[in-house]
Amino acid sequence: VNKDVRDQAIAHNKEVIDYGIALGSDSLTVWLSDGTTFPGQANFRQAYQHTLASLKEIYDQLPEEWKVFIEYKPFEPNFYSMSIPDWGTSYMMANQLGEKASCLVDLGHHLPNTNIEQIVAILMMQNKLGGFHFNDNKYADDDLTVGCVKPYQLFLIFNELVDGMNNTNNPNLSWMIDASHNLKDPMEDLLQSVDAIMMAYAQALIIDRKILIEAQQNNDVSLAQEVLQGAFRTDIRPMTAEARRIKQGALQPISAYRYLKVRKELIKERGKKTISTGL
Amino acid sequence: VNKDVRDQAIAHNKEVIDYGIALGSDSLTVWLSDGTTFPGQANFRQAYQHTLASLKEIYDQLPEEWKVFIEYKPFEPNFYSMSIPDWGTSYMMANQLGEKASCLVDLGHHLPNTNIEQIVAILMMQNKLGGFHFNDNKYADDDLTVGCVKPYQLFLIFNELVDGMNNTNNPNLSWMIDASHNLKDPMEDLLQSVDAIMMAYAQALIIDRKILIEAQQNNDVSLAQEVLQGAFRTDIRPMTAEARRIKQGALQPISAYRYLKVRKELIKERGKKTISTGL
Amino acid sequence: VNKDVRDQAIAHNKEVIDYGIALGSDSLTVWLSDGTTFPGQANFRQAYQHTLASLKEIYDQLPEEWKVFIEYKPFEPNFYSMSIPDWGTSYMMANQLGEKASCLVDLGHHLPNTNIEQIVAILMMQNKLGGFHFNDNKYADDDLTVGCVKPYQLFLIFNELVDGMNNTNNPNLSWMIDASHNLKDPMEDLLQSVDAIMMAYAQALIIDRKILIEAQQNNDVSLAQEVLQGAFRTDIRPMTAEARRIKQGALQPISAYRYLKVRKELIKERGKKTISTGL
Amino acid sequence: VNKDVRDQAIAHNKEVIDYGIALGSDSLTVWLSDGTTFPGQANFRQAYQHTLASLKEIYDQLPEEWKVFIEYKPFEPNFYSMSIPDWGTSYMMANQLGEKASCLVDLGHHLPNTNIEQIVAILMMQNKLGGFHFNDNKYADDDLTVGCVKPYQLFLIFNELVDGMNNTNNPNLSWMIDASHNLKDPMEDLLQSVDAIMMAYAQALIIDRKILIEAQQNNDVSLAQEVLQGAFRTDIRPMTAEARRIKQGALQPISAYRYLKVRKELIKERGKKTISTGL
Repeated sequence: VNKDVRDQAIAHNKEVIDYGIALGSDSLTVWLSDGTTFPGQANFRQAYQHTLASLKEIYDQLPEEWKVFIEYKPFEPNFYSMSIPDWGTSYMMANQLGEKASCLVDLGHHLPNTNIEQIVAILMMQNKLGGFHFNDNKYADDDLTVGCVKPYQLFLIFNELVDGMNNTNNPNLSWMIDASHNLKDPMEDLLQSVDAIMMAYAQALIIDRKILIEAQQNNDVSLAQEVLQGAFRTDIRPMTAEARRIKQGALQPISAYRYLKVRKELIKERGKKTISTGL
Repeated sequence: VNKDVRDQAIAHNKEVIDYGIALGSDSLTVWLSDGTTFPGQANFRQAYQHTLASLKEIYDQLPEEWKVFIEYKPFEPNFYSMSIPDWGTSYMMANQLGEKASCLVDLGHHLPNTNIEQIVAILMMQNKLGGFHFNDNKYADDDLTVGCVKPYQLFLIFNELVDGMNNTNNPNLSWMIDASHNLKDPMEDLLQSVDAIMMAYAQALIIDRKILIEAQQNNDVSLAQEVLQGAFRTDIRPMTAEARRIKQGALQPISAYRYLKVRKELIKERGKKTISTGL
Repeated sequence: VNKDVRDQAIAHNKEVIDYGIALGSDSLTVWLSDGTTFPGQANFRQAYQHTLASLKEIYDQLPEEWKVFIEYKPFEPNFYSMSIPDWGTSYMMANQLGEKASCLVDLGHHLPNTNIEQIVAILMMQNKLGGFHFNDNKYADDDLTVGCVKPYQLFLIFNELVDGMNNTNNPNLSWMIDASHNLKDPMEDLLQSVDAIMMAYAQALIIDRKILIEAQQNNDVSLAQEVLQGAFRTDIRPMTAEARRIKQGALQPISAYRYLKVRKELIKERGKKTISTGL
Repeated sequence: VNKDVRDQAIAHNKEVIDYGIALGSDSLTVWLSDGTTFPGQANFRQAYQHTLASLKEIYDQLPEEWKVFIEYKPFEPNFYSMSIPDWGTSYMMANQLGEKASCLVDLGHHLPNTNIEQIVAILMMQNKLGGFHFNDNKYADDDLTVGCVKPYQLFLIFNELVDGMNNTNNPNLSWMIDASHNLKDPMEDLLQSVDAIMMAYAQALIIDRKILIEAQQNNDVSLAQEVLQGAFRTDIRPMTAEARRIKQGALQPISAYRYLKVRKELIKERGKKTISTGL
């Protein structure tokens, strides 16, 4: 509500942009925790207008070739309403801001049962899909390892991405992993997440789209399912392993990571650097 | 997918418009059951484009002063995706169609836990709230009597309507009740629904907005809640009864309906008409 | 509420048992659509007691070696409460009935986000898992082809079944497919469903349980995931195809079904029978 | 998994019982955050058995007249499974422990759309409803002020309590408020919560149960709704205010609290005590 507080937030974002320029970055992700926890706590329209006005000031500070991503989330940390609760609000704002603005999809930021792949497809068609925060979830914003609970949903999302990538008007996508790992070694969590993304992408690439389109045109629902599941049931691991090998990577990342004691080495390394910095 | 089938649907809508003109109507509600029940059954982008193209043809046939409402629904009768699943898609389409098009909110057409009052507020602010299908629900599109499960949510929606009505750029709202009644006398269900709407509206009108705004500005969350709940806890029934009396209506609709045996009389009446028509 | 109506229902179930005896059946599945659609419509406690009393009368009529399965469902066709809404109520009743009674799990009969595999595991441990209605869903009781939306959940359920089958005190499970198919040829839907079940079962069988248990004991969460996903990512189709071949079945059921025009032949066959019956 | 860790937890609970005895308490609430965040992380059956075995050791230490409440929660802090996820598991454990054990219902610990009042009714009928953690929520375990989002649900829960209290075999209920208040003065949050509970209770007491039962027996669903809503629509605030006045309490607690600057006085008071303790 308060203009001073908003000005602080705007100034903070501008500062972040300056750091980004210095670091050679070219995009800004805005996720707002703003919202209300009790009915009546704030006015929805005013909150929207304040949010949009502040985003406009930030938008105007963006360097020419930069992009800004508008993230959405239905609840948490606020428990009655969020200022940008869903893709519809994010899309509305991205449109009102301009071409540099697009929507960011965090897989865990949806109400139960949401068809995320449809949102991805429609945003991409409207040139407003900016990128992803990949993770997985069973209940809410659980921030689990990508693909650990709903691998088929991940595949269906990549099916849309592969299918929609011929739309060159949509901005280049920004790929981010946003998982929290207090039960796993964070590096192993990342290795598993990257692997899940590679597999979903590769499986989406081997979908026989010619037959899929024919099946859709003939309303042959069984066949359409056979085509999608056929790609998903294929053991794609040899192919993603080979793709890593070609790039001088490990065939089996987790095993290599453990065998080479990478974690231990990295901790040692960090120790050295900290000491040299200290000097 | 098939152009012929779409043309039939378009022709049907045009025919409906003609009947509407003959009957003195001035609006068309489009609720599409279209969608898919299995992954891969259809292409989301193509389905969107076909839907929009068809709606454009219908839109172009609308008489000058008519409006068209785009309804949305997350699932059922299709169980994987709906062509217009949420308010975001409905808003996108209404925008792409033009000024005569706006969004229709059916209270039962949302995923679990959706904050409907926020959607209502934002659509109204964007001049795209066309109207309502009022009903209530606990699980899905249950089509229950208005206010029978979540009366406070109904009040919060009316709070937004009363607050947003100063926006004269939003179209006049269309009010519809869309409840299914196979367990109650349908007339009694309607009487209870209308009563619930009158009470929610009247309670929203007695909210002390001056204090509410002050509380919001001071971030006095407890007071904001006191103000809203104070209006909701007020027994508004004498006021709505008096409003009915002034208009020559019944003080207690259900009791009057039963005492006067209206149902029985209507059935008799219908019998007569049927016979005379038969002759 | 009404005793006469309950007596009719009881008599109907007894009649069904008689037919079952004549047909050589050995179990009865009870799914009750009973419940309420509006708050206050009935008394929860009384509904429970009436349901239990009626089930007891039916239970007493069961032949010695028969079993009765108590199915549960959270909503639909009633929209406020169901008499047996969840596994807890089903379990309570099965316990109060006796050893012949156990719980039936329909995969689509759960509230959003339910961990079904945990329910399966716990019921099996308590000797009260009677069987399944297999299907798949995205929103509610969608009755889709098994495995078409959540194949990994199906695999996790079979993981529990394989792991729990050493409990010989649990009754032999009854396997039923309960999918609705108005968009697919019903036979093809069944072929796809059976295939999905075979794959989930086979993949659960190849889980390296020794390593899984070690990982669990060492709290090596990453490794536990690797083990489960390793089995699930394995292309098990050659193995299930071979299993079919050994039993003189088709390697690729859908293809064979289409190539051999089984549907057409069956319709012809049915035509003949109908005619001869007609004579 | 680890026996040593479980023994620590058991020892901790026994210590808590000792403190409770010293303080004159007579009950122990067990809420377990245990569970798993990734599929495969632990074995459901083993987790259940370990949990039950530990609870048995604690149970055996309970003084004669003590009670133990088993709380359940579907997710958070674990995101794949909880050891006691639902009322069914809690009930199963309470039964296996013995008469001193019963179930604790936290209103925020349910999956979306759960009919909580039915759970309350059935547990009470089975003599296993131990008490409540009152709060309110819109999405998950939001821990909001009681009655601030779903006041009608609260009323329906009290309807069951009033109706079921003639069952003297159910233990005396323990009433707890479990709300989190980082946006409101915690004292004001509590005052609002207590007020909401008093109102729901008083409104449940004025339900005309004779007519309600008649309506249920006649399957007069409209009338049953009129009876419930009639009680809920009644402005009960004068009655709860009078009840407070009789007990020498404030007519309007929040106003009195603010007018008398209770918070400020309490802080001063605390300051004094802290100082004297310090000396």
